[in-house]
Amino acid sequence: MKVTVWNENIHEKEIPLVTELYPGGLHGYLAGFLKEEDVEVRTATLDESECGLTDEILKDTDVVIWWGHAGHHLVPDEIVEMVHGYVLRGMGLVVLHSGHHSKLFRKLMGTTCNLKWRDDARERVWTIKPNHPIAAGIPETFVLDCEEMYGEPFDVPEPQETIFMSWFNGGEVFRSGFTNVRGNGRIFYFQPGHETNRSFQNPYVQRIIKNAVRWACPVRKNLAIECPHAPALEGE
Amino acid sequence: MKVTVWNENIHEKEIPLVTELYPGGLHGYLAGFLKEEDVEVRTATLDESECGLTDEILKDTDVVIWWGHAGHHLVPDEIVEMVHGYVLRGMGLVVLHSGHHSKLFRKLMGTTCNLKWRDDARERVWTIKPNHPIAAGIPETFVLDCEEMYGEPFDVPEPQETIFMSWFNGGEVFRSGFTNVRGNGRIFYFQPGHETNRSFQNPYVQRIIKNAVRWACPVRKNLAIECPHAPALEGE
Amino acid sequence: MKVTVWNENIHEKEIPLVTELYPGGLHGYLAGFLKEEDVEVRTATLDESECGLTDEILKDTDVVIWWGHAGHHLVPDEIVEMVHGYVLRGMGLVVLHSGHHSKLFRKLMGTTCNLKWRDDARERVWTIKPNHPIAAGIPETFVLDCEEMYGEPFDVPEPQETIFMSWFNGGEVFRSGFTNVRGNGRIFYFQPGHETNRSFQNPYVQRIIKNAVRWACPVRKNLAIECPHAPALEGE
Amino acid sequence: MKVTVWNENIHEKEIPLVTELYPGGLHGYLAGFLKEEDVEVRTATLDESECGLTDEILKDTDVVIWWGHAGHHLVPDEIVEMVHGYVLRGMGLVVLHSGHHSKLFRKLMGTTCNLKWRDDARERVWTIKPNHPIAAGIPETFVLDCEEMYGEPFDVPEPQETIFMSWFNGGEVFRSGFTNVRGNGRIFYFQPGHETNRSFQNPYVQRIIKNAVRWACPVRKNLAIECPHAPALEGE
Repeated sequence: MKVTVWNENIHEKEIPLVTELYPGGLHGYLAGFLKEEDVEVRTATLDESECGLTDEILKDTDVVIWWGHAGHHLVPDEIVEMVHGYVLRGMGLVVLHSGHHSKLFRKLMGTTCNLKWRDDARERVWTIKPNHPIAAGIPETFVLDCEEMYGEPFDVPEPQETIFMSWFNGGEVFRSGFTNVRGNGRIFYFQPGHETNRSFQNPYVQRIIKNAVRWACPVRKNLAIECPHAPALEGE
Repeated sequence: MKVTVWNENIHEKEIPLVTELYPGGLHGYLAGFLKEEDVEVRTATLDESECGLTDEILKDTDVVIWWGHAGHHLVPDEIVEMVHGYVLRGMGLVVLHSGHHSKLFRKLMGTTCNLKWRDDARERVWTIKPNHPIAAGIPETFVLDCEEMYGEPFDVPEPQETIFMSWFNGGEVFRSGFTNVRGNGRIFYFQPGHETNRSFQNPYVQRIIKNAVRWACPVRKNLAIECPHAPALEGE
Repeated sequence: MKVTVWNENIHEKEIPLVTELYPGGLHGYLAGFLKEEDVEVRTATLDESECGLTDEILKDTDVVIWWGHAGHHLVPDEIVEMVHGYVLRGMGLVVLHSGHHSKLFRKLMGTTCNLKWRDDARERVWTIKPNHPIAAGIPETFVLDCEEMYGEPFDVPEPQETIFMSWFNGGEVFRSGFTNVRGNGRIFYFQPGHETNRSFQNPYVQRIIKNAVRWACPVRKNLAIECPHAPALEGE
Repeated sequence: MKVTVWNENIHEKEIPLVTELYPGGLHGYLAGFLKEEDVEVRTATLDESECGLTDEILKDTDVVIWWGHAGHHLVPDEIVEMVHGYVLRGMGLVVLHSGHHSKLFRKLMGTTCNLKWRDDARERVWTIKPNHPIAAGIPETFVLDCEEMYGEPFDVPEPQETIFMSWFNGGEVFRSGFTNVRGNGRIFYFQPGHETNRSFQNPYVQRIIKNAVRWACPVRKNLAIECPHAPALEGE
């Protein structure tokens, strides 16, 4: 399985705390723990040519992980269009945290993906589908002491399966992990992962991302989605 | 529109606080505020003959509201079977609070409908589908100071639409209001409504139940669901 | 209820058969039978200024009906963006036939909306959710003697409710009528309605479109979908 | 992975054509081609003690395949209850053809599972989710020359994912392969497989059943589904 971790890589250069927490960038950190699995991992960032997402690389990718925040608008529409096409043709996609507002995720969901937010909340994650492959090895509940609160209403279409729901100490609730399918592509959104917090260091968060990559891996790659004139097959 | 409010009517006779809060029984109280709408309301209770749910009454009912708790096992299987059949043929159903464990709801969901619980929690309800007809007139969030906590995981099939989600001060979350369809019947489950609490006196809770009754009202009643040998319609 | 029927109005000017079948345009014909209901109907077409879809008109519209085919690319992106926003904020949308490939529907679905097609097929529509409000008054099955075949696979996300499925004499099947929700907007797609066929003259097709408009009508209009920084409501 | 193929094994003893087509019984035939995979297969039939479905066997089973028709009523309720419990706790279930009317499937769906039927139809299966693991290796469409027609409306809850849809030469359509989840159990229903037809000899049908068994295999087995009194985890 081949995974490409995409990260805008902006905060890492500008916020000392982020540099300190994730010296190789969020992409490097994510790639690091994914490599513990039987997975071939590449990274790609906004400052690379074509955002590091060439046709050649995508053709050779089973699942993309997406982290973005401050630079959503800097991703060219043509890149978004291309990645979107790969997802529809079967490439898996795991969108993390503030990636909810990426052009790519909004294009796939068809909605604003707006939500409530507040820094530095206490989050309790609940596993509500314990037999889903993405929940393998995850306890019924676990705590992230400091994470950005994302709260409902979350403007996304009804998920196919809501796997995780989160409680926040300020009174909010959130569908924090859920799946959808668009075209032939399997998509998992997961809310933890703020750049100034340590959620990606949490072993359950790592396990969920590893599971998600496996779940999103396509059975068939680059399935054509055509609109053919179709001669009658029966009765004539 | 004709509504039949069913209540087991047990706690009302045994727990002084319940008698005091709901002197005419939970069924009487629910019927009372439903009558403010353009709705014809009947009540039926466990201690009546055939649980007050005769074929004649059900034939003349658009929507049943169900409240039960201590007496789920006292409802005869034949009554459950009959009401289940009416739901499949189009009758609406609104299941309140501890009705989640009624034979009827479990039969319709196909699961245990198990959940976590604890008395006397602070609950904050969130409206996550503000344009759903059941959410008409309901604010983004409102508080029930004292309600029984029901917590995830809630063993029900993925809802068709999750309209309300709740936060509890003990760290729990819950899908507290959602719809499903079984056969031709529209079903709404709503979590608030513990017998020793005052949630049914909350104007938003009342509005939600009134909205739900209207939403669950069938377009057509007593639709046959058959299994016919069907001659070919084409090509022969 | 206020409905705006949008039509590109191209074939009506170019294909004599279409002019003959629908002398007032498809929009005029659709508006004609909608007026039989208790509905206020406007029409809007591609050749009007701003496609006839100004902010003022949309603000005053409950449901838009959309028919397009040859001119999808002629609808400016800003118009699509504006109508998309109104749908997310609660406006209903009924997409007919070749509107599946409109920029608007693709943007809402997040997919290509590709499908198979062939002119002049025999179509048999099946009602698979007889109690859905959109199916009120529709028989279990009815035939359209000559309609354009649209066949699976249809690249759309899993519908919220599939209400109609169609059989075609060439061996194809299609999910021909289904609902989705995006943001606060209720969306119904319905496949019959090719410009050179008479499906819009079929009383069941007319009844389905009338029902759909009523179903898609919002409970609340112009609901804001925001992304606020939210102060804690509890515990602090 | 351990699979138990359950078959009522009635027609095999009574109808010479069935004996001839499936000399080792439908269960033997299904077990035969499943063994080609990396799967450990057992069979169990109605005439065995406890229908061959003891607690010990189910505890050691990942996925049950179910074929029944004439003997649905002969399966004791306690056996149904036990298998139902195993499914909710995570065991996978693949229900074939006339198993739609088994007590088990009806109990899981919560509906009558009624449908239309007619012997000896020409069926064309369409793959509408080509990237679903159950569709791996299956072409866009394939034909079963002679199969029992099952037609809509099929009284089941909206599927989680409809993977296959079928066309029949008599004018009918059917959702012929779809998934659902109940509790922790993954369920796949597949319509081909009439006892007097040769569908189980079709390589695509075999591939679908093999894929389905793999898809339904639980991540965790025997997950408890409890209803605990839960002390507060936060804030007290």
